[in-house]
Amino acid sequence: MSRQPDESRRSERARQAIHAATAELLASTSYDAITIEKIAAQAGVGKQTIYRWWPSKAAIIVDVWAEVIAPRAAFPDTGDLEADLRAQLTRMLDVLVEPVLGLNYMAVIADSQRDERLAADLSARIFAPRIADTKDRLRLAQAAGQMRDDVDVDTVADLLYGGIFFRSLFRLVPLDRTQPDALVAALIRGIGPLR
Amino acid sequence: MSRQPDESRRSERARQAIHAATAELLASTSYDAITIEKIAAQAGVGKQTIYRWWPSKAAIIVDVWAEVIAPRAAFPDTGDLEADLRAQLTRMLDVLVEPVLGLNYMAVIADSQRDERLAADLSARIFAPRIADTKDRLRLAQAAGQMRDDVDVDTVADLLYGGIFFRSLFRLVPLDRTQPDALVAALIRGIGPLR
Repeated sequence: MSRQPDESRRSERARQAIHAATAELLASTSYDAITIEKIAAQAGVGKQTIYRWWPSKAAIIVDVWAEVIAPRAAFPDTGDLEADLRAQLTRMLDVLVEPVLGLNYMAVIADSQRDERLAADLSARIFAPRIADTKDRLRLAQAAGQMRDDVDVDTVADLLYGGIFFRSLFRLVPLDRTQPDALVAALIRGIGPLR
Repeated sequence: MSRQPDESRRSERARQAIHAATAELLASTSYDAITIEKIAAQAGVGKQTIYRWWPSKAAIIVDVWAEVIAPRAAFPDTGDLEADLRAQLTRMLDVLVEPVLGLNYMAVIADSQRDERLAADLSARIFAPRIADTKDRLRLAQAAGQMRDDVDVDTVADLLYGGIFFRSLFRLVPLDRTQPDALVAALIRGIGPLR
């Protein structure tokens, strides 16, 4: 019992080292080449320590994503809807254009199309909180008269994030940093003729 | 030389049988369970006949997609932009909501995130022609005064298709047949306050 605090400190240090090692690998090594062995070696822990907390490579990655990477893209609220939507998409784009991290992001999403458990994890820990944040921000905009009341917030979330992911997935047009501005302007003003 | 016409007719029949068998499997069998053996058995041809024309399962599937499934979603042009965008998205959604075919569609896209050759094939044979069609239709709308001139057609294509794919990929909100109406209305009128 006297060793409890030490052990729990040691556990927390190991967990942080594993998170840091995984985040580093995600930015430098392709998804398929990342292994539990590499994460353990980089973190300076045994493989058993990793398996004590996580059942699979995908589970660690989702965990790191939720705790280390996702906070980089928290939804801003400056009171200016257009500026905030642009800022949000620009931060997402910053991740997607990173050469290794961006491809790894798409590889995890790709795997989730065939792995129900990974899909449920990604959804619960990463996408659902992000979409909930987005919808809160949009409802504030509706209350402030910056967004029409008769537009469904789910539809706006689909358009906003879909517009960015579509290019990343299909690579028909390169991702570029002017995309958020054009996308948000079209979304706010609409593409129909001026009334 | 006298047998040439017969042989070429026989080849064409085999090719069509392979296409039909693949289309049927895509609608009934999960992507991972579709094999060259199953396609050959269902088409009533030998595996060698398939390998004579296609290097891989993915190559046949892209071929069938381009020739059999993609034409179901050719971009309509009735002169009414909003109706045409809705009709186009509804036809795409009809494919995505089919229980097996829709998941197989996403599985092929998922694989293309790691397979450069498949990505290039999908892009050249399926997505690029579709996007080119879409951009042609949007430019006609601009010329007819139904769409603003200062909106980039690539941005509109991203918003239009991204909005549909986003739900399909992330499964946060179920795909439903009211989505195209809401999506196109928001896109045409914009989400900003009425001016």
